[in-house]
Amino acid sequence: MLYARKAATSPDFSLDDLPGSGGRMDLVARCVCSALWISHGLRRDACIHIAAYGRPNPPVVISFYGDKLRNVSPDERNIASWIKIALASKRKNPGIAVRRGLSFQKLIEELASSGNFIYILHEDGVPVEDVDLKADAVFVLGDHLGIPRKEEKFVERFPHEKISLGNISYLASQCITIINYELDRRDAR
Amino acid sequence: MLYARKAATSPDFSLDDLPGSGGRMDLVARCVCSALWISHGLRRDACIHIAAYGRPNPPVVISFYGDKLRNVSPDERNIASWIKIALASKRKNPGIAVRRGLSFQKLIEELASSGNFIYILHEDGVPVEDVDLKADAVFVLGDHLGIPRKEEKFVERFPHEKISLGNISYLASQCITIINYELDRRDAR
Repeated sequence: MLYARKAATSPDFSLDDLPGSGGRMDLVARCVCSALWISHGLRRDACIHIAAYGRPNPPVVISFYGDKLRNVSPDERNIASWIKIALASKRKNPGIAVRRGLSFQKLIEELASSGNFIYILHEDGVPVEDVDLKADAVFVLGDHLGIPRKEEKFVERFPHEKISLGNISYLASQCITIINYELDRRDAR
Repeated sequence: MLYARKAATSPDFSLDDLPGSGGRMDLVARCVCSALWISHGLRRDACIHIAAYGRPNPPVVISFYGDKLRNVSPDERNIASWIKIALASKRKNPGIAVRRGLSFQKLIEELASSGNFIYILHEDGVPVEDVDLKADAVFVLGDHLGIPRKEEKFVERFPHEKISLGNISYLASQCITIINYELDRRDAR
């Protein structure tokens, strides 16, 4: 689950300027790609929620489900074009849902009450290598601006653990790739 | 080092259609992003070479150097636009070099003779976790179509090892992120 502080909440952004007019929609699209794509396929057991807090109508939660996604390519422009379509309520993709007015906190509540354990990516967290990652878990991370402290504190009310990926501060999309890699390694054991 | 079988070798591709007209230039751009970017900065000690074998003038080697790169953003469109500029020999970016006619094999020879050890990413390789990765190393990987067997055999003439990232076949860009992560982990020990 990505907190995207600037991500556009209306379809009026330009596919030719995802970083600017899209409010770092390039970053959002890369995160979707990292979360769901592998070579020649999708992770059918994964989904990603974007809590978009950019202009003009925040908050909006945009969710991509690996088991239902159709006709989407892993490039930023294509993923962003599907977000645009979903925000315009134009064409339905069974693997994409848009929920207007749903806040980060409401989504956290919803996920926690469904029994999901929450991992918060955090510089001061426990090294991921030392953590026995739970299967039904949600990973919460911020965009280039990070998660607002207020929101982080809210998450801390629920069963959670802070985990760190090491000394390097990675791009959000790279964090997701690394988490998937760590989960895959554990699955393979 | 990425073997990009279809990547465009002239600037006549459309930034609006990187997968098609660019010959999977979206994949190439994602690899550049994964290789060089971290949060709020670049890996100054890293570079990536793309051996482009697409139309109309293969081979072309396009190299990005983290220590000299200027004014490039991590989104696919921006990276691809710089590749376009470099292929057109229009504007110079000190961190991007284009070498026309340089083949994958010549580049491998060049890198090996500079003392670089070569790791080939391969399904049947040794698990990366069990490998004590060398510092001066080149990692060779293919695009969605893989490295041609002929080229792989050529690499095997030089000091090399085949390594695997596990059971999952990742996107090329994800492989690069994972390799960087594995290198970072070793650095931190």
